[in-house]
Amino acid sequence: MAVDPERTIAELRELHELTGSAAGGARRLAWGEGVGKAREWLDAKLAELPVEVTYDAAGNHWATLRGASERALVVGSHLDSVAGGGWLDGALGVLAGLEALRAISERYDGVPPVTVRLVDWADEEGARFGRSLLGSSAAAGTLDIDDLRGRVDSDGVAIEAAMVSAGVDIEKLKDSGAELASMAAYLELHIEQGPVLEQERRLALAAVDGTCAAKRYRVRFEGEACHPAATPMSHRRDALLACSRFVVGAHEVAARHEAMTSIGYVGAEPNHITIIAGACETVIEQNHREGEVLDAVVAETEALAREIAAEGPFELQVESLWETPTIDFDPELTALGEARIAALGEEPFRMTSGPLHDAAEMARAGIPATMLFVRSIGGISHNPAEDTDHADLVLAIRALAGLADDALDLVAAGAAADTAGAAGPNAGGSA
Amino acid sequence: MAVDPERTIAELRELHELTGSAAGGARRLAWGEGVGKAREWLDAKLAELPVEVTYDAAGNHWATLRGASERALVVGSHLDSVAGGGWLDGALGVLAGLEALRAISERYDGVPPVTVRLVDWADEEGARFGRSLLGSSAAAGTLDIDDLRGRVDSDGVAIEAAMVSAGVDIEKLKDSGAELASMAAYLELHIEQGPVLEQERRLALAAVDGTCAAKRYRVRFEGEACHPAATPMSHRRDALLACSRFVVGAHEVAARHEAMTSIGYVGAEPNHITIIAGACETVIEQNHREGEVLDAVVAETEALAREIAAEGPFELQVESLWETPTIDFDPELTALGEARIAALGEEPFRMTSGPLHDAAEMARAGIPATMLFVRSIGGISHNPAEDTDHADLVLAIRALAGLADDALDLVAAGAAADTAGAAGPNAGGSA
Repeated sequence: MAVDPERTIAELRELHELTGSAAGGARRLAWGEGVGKAREWLDAKLAELPVEVTYDAAGNHWATLRGASERALVVGSHLDSVAGGGWLDGALGVLAGLEALRAISERYDGVPPVTVRLVDWADEEGARFGRSLLGSSAAAGTLDIDDLRGRVDSDGVAIEAAMVSAGVDIEKLKDSGAELASMAAYLELHIEQGPVLEQERRLALAAVDGTCAAKRYRVRFEGEACHPAATPMSHRRDALLACSRFVVGAHEVAARHEAMTSIGYVGAEPNHITIIAGACETVIEQNHREGEVLDAVVAETEALAREIAAEGPFELQVESLWETPTIDFDPELTALGEARIAALGEEPFRMTSGPLHDAAEMARAGIPATMLFVRSIGGISHNPAEDTDHADLVLAIRALAGLADDALDLVAAGAAADTAGAAGPNAGGSA
Repeated sequence: MAVDPERTIAELRELHELTGSAAGGARRLAWGEGVGKAREWLDAKLAELPVEVTYDAAGNHWATLRGASERALVVGSHLDSVAGGGWLDGALGVLAGLEALRAISERYDGVPPVTVRLVDWADEEGARFGRSLLGSSAAAGTLDIDDLRGRVDSDGVAIEAAMVSAGVDIEKLKDSGAELASMAAYLELHIEQGPVLEQERRLALAAVDGTCAAKRYRVRFEGEACHPAATPMSHRRDALLACSRFVVGAHEVAARHEAMTSIGYVGAEPNHITIIAGACETVIEQNHREGEVLDAVVAETEALAREIAAEGPFELQVESLWETPTIDFDPELTALGEARIAALGEEPFRMTSGPLHDAAEMARAGIPATMLFVRSIGGISHNPAEDTDHADLVLAIRALAGLADDALDLVAAGAAADTAGAAGPNAGGSA
C-alpha cells in the first residue's frame, strides 16, 4: 500500500463534512462533542491497522504500531479546532500522519524495526479555555495546572467539568508525561497559516527549524476621564490617545529591528463616544528568531511606554502575560525534511515558525522534533475560508511520509547502537 | 426675601440626598423614578410661591409667575442626570433659578411687570437614549422624532414606553414649541464641567457668549484579520494600527488649528489578543468657535484618513453622525452677565462653551439667551466627584439672580415699547 495522498484529502473532506460545514467551518472545540466525534471517526480508520488505540491522562489520543524496539517515532498534530476554524489546521497533520503510519505498517508487514505512533494532541488551540498546546505541554511537563483551575468557557462551563466529560482528571494531566519516555523523534506537518510561502517565497513547502522567541505583555495607561468638549486638549490626560501613540510607536520599534509586533486588542474605559477615556490598555506580542534581539525590542518598547506615560502623566502598568524562548528543532531531522522537499522537485527552503505548535513542546522536552509547513492560500487560517491548493496538499502528504521513513531509519539506527551497548547519555529520548 | 445662596446650596444637598448618594452620585436618569421624585420635590418648594406648575408636551417642567405682560423671562436648566452624575450638573441652574424667581416674586409682590418662568428641561443629558437636549430641542423645533423611534435603553426599555410612563407621547413632543411663543429671554447658570476657569484663568465665573461649532463622525478602517505570529507585518492589513495612526494624526491636525479633537471610543474587531484586527472604528468629534476653521480641520482630518487607508489598503468609511454650527448667544444679555460678574468684585470674563446646553436650543430658536458658568473643581463632571467650592456657588447664585433682575428690566422695556406701538419685527421673541 503506497502513500496515497488522494485518500488523505478525501478523508480530510469526510472529516470536515462530519464535524463542520463549508459556511460555518470546523466545529471541533476541545473537550466537546465535535472533537469526540472526530476521534471516534479516526478510530474507525485505525481499526484497519494493527495498532493499539489509547488515551493518555491529558486526553491525548494515541495509535501505537509496536515495532521491534520500544523506541518510538511519533507523527501527529491535533484534531481540535477553533470555533469556525478551517478544514486543514491540525487535521492535515493527523491524517497525513495516518497515511505515513499505513505505509510503514505495510512496508514492515505490521512490525517495523522501531515503534511508530500517531498522536492527536488534546486542546492544541486553547480556543475554549485560553490555554493552547494544553495536551502536549501536559506531556512535556511545562503546563502549570494551577493556571488552568477556575477557567470557564463562554458558556460558563468550568474547565474541570469539560475535561471530566472527556474522561480527563485535571489533577492527573501531567501523568501523560509517561508517553514521552520512549519517544525518540517527533514529526508534524501543518499548514503555514501565514503568507511567507505563498507571497514572499512562492513555494509549496518549508522545513521548519524552530519557533521564534515571543513575549506577550499588557500595557495600561491610566489618566483621567473628562467631558471632551469642555476640556481643552492641553488639560486632558487622554488614555486612548496615549495608547494609540504606543500602538503606533511599538510598530516602529519592531520595524527598526526587523522584529514583529502584534496588537489585536485595545480596551478604552469607559469607551464612550462622549467621554475622554480615563484608562486604556492593550496587549502586545513581540517576536524574533533571536532571544537577544527580542529582549532589545521589548526594552525599547517599554521605554517608549514610559516616555508616553511621563508626558501625560499617566499611571503605567506593564504586566508580562506570557513568554517563550526561541525553540530550536533538531537540525538533523530538519535537514531530512529539507532533503525530502528537494526530492519532490521543490526548492529546498527552511523557515522559523512564528506561532507555536505541539512540536515546540516536544522540542522543549528534549525530544528531537521537526515540522513541515505547507503553503496556505492568502495566509488565511482560523477561518472557514482556510485552504491549500490540492497539488500542494499532495506534495505535503508525500513529504511527511518520506520524512517519516527517513526518521524511522534514524531512530532504528539509534536503537541498534543502543542495543550494541553504545547508548548515549540520553538513551531514553535521543535519536 | 433677599437672594439666599445658602438656602439654594442646602436645597441642592437635600435633593442630592433624596435622589442620589455620595458614593453613587446623582441617580436621576431621564423619564425615570429619580427625576420624577426630584420634580415632585421641586413642586413642593414651588407651592410656597404664587406660581402655576405645568408640564408641556415634551415633559418640560414649568413654573410660571404671571406678570403684567405675557412676555416671559425664562430661567432654568435640567434636573435629569447621567447615571452616577454629580450633584450640580443641571440641578444648580434649576435651584438657582428658583432662588431668582423667589426674589422677583417678593420684590414685585407676586406680580412682576413681565411674566417670569422657571423651566426644568426634560432629558437634557441624553444618557438613557443617546439624544441630549431632548426637551429643549423639541420645544425649539430642531428635534427629529423619527431619529428617536426604536431607541431602547440599556435595560431594553423603548423610548416610547419610557416617555409614556412620564406622561409624554412621542408623537406630540414638538407641541411643546408653544411654550416659546411668549419667551423673550432665556438665562441659564451651569457648572463649567471643564478646567478653563479653574486651571487656565483662575476665575470663579464666566459669561458665556455662545457654543462652538462641532462635527462628530465615525471613521472605520476595514483591512483583513490574520494570525499575528504567522503573518509578517509587511503582509498585514492591520486595521487597529491604521485606526491608532488616525487617532494620533487627528490630534495633530487639530493642534495645528488650535481646534479640539475628542476621541473616546475605539472598537477593534474581533478585538482579540491573538488576532490582528480585520476592522477598527472610532468616533471623532472636532470643535472650534468658528465654523470655517472647523470645516478646514475636518477636511484635513478626513484627508489623513484617506491617506492612511490608501496605504493599507483599507476600505474606509466616514459617516457623519452629528453636527452643530456655532451658536451665538445674545450680546446684550451676555454683556449684562459679564457686568454682574464685575459687580460681585470678580474679574469680568467671557468664554465660548464647548458643550451644548439647553440655552443653545433657545438661541437656535431665535430667543435671546445667555449663560453663566461657574468653576468646576478639577473640571470633573458626570461623576459623583463633581464639585464646586462653596464660595463659588454663592457667587454664581448671586450672579444669576442679578442677571435675572437686569434681564427682567430689559424684557419689561421691550414690552413697554410694544404696548406703545413700537413693536419690532420680532415682537414675539425679542427682548
